Amino acid sequence: MTYSELSEQIVQKQSYLCVGLDTDPRKIPKYLLTEPDPVFTFNKAIIDATAEFAVAYKPNIAFYEAQGPRGWESLQKTLDYIPDACFSIADAKRGDIGNTSDLYARTFFDAEAAGLSFDSITVAPYMGHDSVMPFLAYDGKWVILLALTSNVGSADFQRQSIGEQELFEKVIETAQTWAGPDRLMFVVGATQADELSRIREIAPDNFLLVPGVGAQGGSLEDVSRRGLTAAGGLLVNASRSILYASDGTDFADKARHEAKILQREMAQYLADYQKK
Amino acid sequence: MTYSELSEQIVQKQSYLCVGLDTDPRKIPKYLLTEPDPVFTFNKAIIDATAEFAVAYKPNIAFYEAQGPRGWESLQKTLDYIPDACFSIADAKRGDIGNTSDLYARTFFDAEAAGLSFDSITVAPYMGHDSVMPFLAYDGKWVILLALTSNVGSADFQRQSIGEQELFEKVIETAQTWAGPDRLMFVVGATQADELSRIREIAPDNFLLVPGVGAQGGSLEDVSRRGLTAAGGLLVNASRSILYASDGTDFADKARHEAKILQREMAQYLADYQKK
Repeated sequence: MTYSELSEQIVQKQSYLCVGLDTDPRKIPKYLLTEPDPVFTFNKAIIDATAEFAVAYKPNIAFYEAQGPRGWESLQKTLDYIPDACFSIADAKRGDIGNTSDLYARTFFDAEAAGLSFDSITVAPYMGHDSVMPFLAYDGKWVILLALTSNVGSADFQRQSIGEQELFEKVIETAQTWAGPDRLMFVVGATQADELSRIREIAPDNFLLVPGVGAQGGSLEDVSRRGLTAAGGLLVNASRSILYASDGTDFADKARHEAKILQREMAQYLADYQKK
Repeated sequence: MTYSELSEQIVQKQSYLCVGLDTDPRKIPKYLLTEPDPVFTFNKAIIDATAEFAVAYKPNIAFYEAQGPRGWESLQKTLDYIPDACFSIADAKRGDIGNTSDLYARTFFDAEAAGLSFDSITVAPYMGHDSVMPFLAYDGKWVILLALTSNVGSADFQRQSIGEQELFEKVIETAQTWAGPDRLMFVVGATQADELSRIREIAPDNFLLVPGVGAQGGSLEDVSRRGLTAAGGLLVNASRSILYASDGTDFADKARHEAKILQREMAQYLADYQKK
C-alpha cells in the first residue's frame, strides 16, 4: 500500500485506527477453544466486526510464535483474511546483520517463503543501517522503526543524551537518510505524547505507529492534537481494549462497539485538524 | 545449564566453539533436498560431526522462520537433537513491551508452549529493562544481550557517545543491574576486538558471545587474547565457515575438519591463558 492510498483510507473511513491482533488463546472466549483453529476463528470475527472502523491490522508475532507451527498457520490465515484495503503490520521487532535481516524480510514480505506478505514490519534500530536496509529492498513494503516506545524501560537507553539530542531523536534523524516517508514510519508510544511535538519537527511527514492507548494508559486526544498531519500521519493502535472487551459470545459486538467509539473520536480530531 | 557447568565443558573439550546453525535450504547439499526434512537432516549430520569440538549450538531463528510452519518443526527437532551437555542459544534478537516479551520467553524457554526449551536467547536492548526482565523470570535460563555487534551499522547508534561512555558501554553497565554473570551474557562482534579490553573492564566475569569469526573477517586470536577469563568467558561462534565447508556428500566431514581446526586453536589460547 502506498502513502497516498493509506492517506485516502484515513479520509474515507475517518479513522486512523489500527487493531492490534495480540490474540492469546488463554484470553479468548472459552467456547471458541473447541474450534479447529480458535485463534483464527477469533481473529476472523474481530476483523469482520471492526473493518468498517479500522485502517490497519497489526498481528503481534509473539502471540503466534508462542503456539509453535500451529501459530504460524493461524497467522497465515489471519493475514489472508485482512481486507486488501487495510494496511497490514507484522509487529515483529526484528533486526539482525544483513544476511539474517534478509531472511526476516523474506519471511514477512515474500509469500513464497513462509506464506506471508505483510505491507510492513516493525524493526529495532540498535544494529544500525545494514540491519534495516534488507527490509527496504522489498519494493513497496514499509519499515516501521522503533523510536520512542510506550514502556517505562524506554528511559533506559532511548532517552539518553547524545550531544544535543536524545537517542530516539538520533534514530529518527539517521533513519531518514535511509528512506523517505513513503517507506518509513516510526513507533512512538502514546504514553510519550509530550515528545510528539518535537518528533513532528524532525519527522514532519512520516506516519507514526502509536501503541499504548487503552490498556497502557496513553491519551488519544493528546496524541491526535500533536501528531496528526495533512496526510493523516498517525496509526493509533488498540489491542486489548478491543479484543477482550467481552469474554462471552458477544465478544465481536463488544469489539465493534469499542472500535466505533475510537473511530468517532478520531473523526472529531480529523475534523478539528481540518479547521486549524 | 549453569555458569560452572558451562565453564567445565570448556575445560573438558578445550573449546569455546559455538556452531551457528544458520541452515539455508538454498545452500545445503542438493542431494539432501529429497529428504522429508532436509534442514533437520543437515543439522543432525552437522551436530554429529562437530559435537566433540563444540560447547554450544546456536540456531539462527530467521532461517527457520523463513520456512514457515515447517521451519518451526525443523527447529524443534534440531533443538531436541542438540546434546544436553551443550549450551543451546536461540539467536532470535527479540525484545518488546513486558506482556509481549513474556510470550517470546514462553516461546523459546517453555517446552509446553511451542515445543522449545533453549538454555538462552539473544535479546535486543533498545526497549530497556522491562523488555528484558520477562526472559530472566525463567529460572536457570540466560539472556544474551546485544552490546557491540559485528556489522558496520554498529557505528550508527552503539558507538554514539553518551557522556563519557558509548551506548554499548551504557548497555553493558546498565544490564548488570538486572542480572549477574550467571544469567547474563553479551554479544560482542569479533570485528570489534579492539574494544574487548574495555569491555572486560566493565564486564570482567560475563560470558561474551562472539560472532563474526570466519565469513565476517574477525580474528580468533585477537578475540581470545583479550576476551578469555579464568572461567572461559567466551563463546566464539562460527556458522557459514563450518556449515558450508563443502556442498558435496562430504559436507559433514569437512564441517568436522573446520570445527577441529578452530578447537585446536582454542586449546592453544586456553593453554596460553593458564600460563599468564
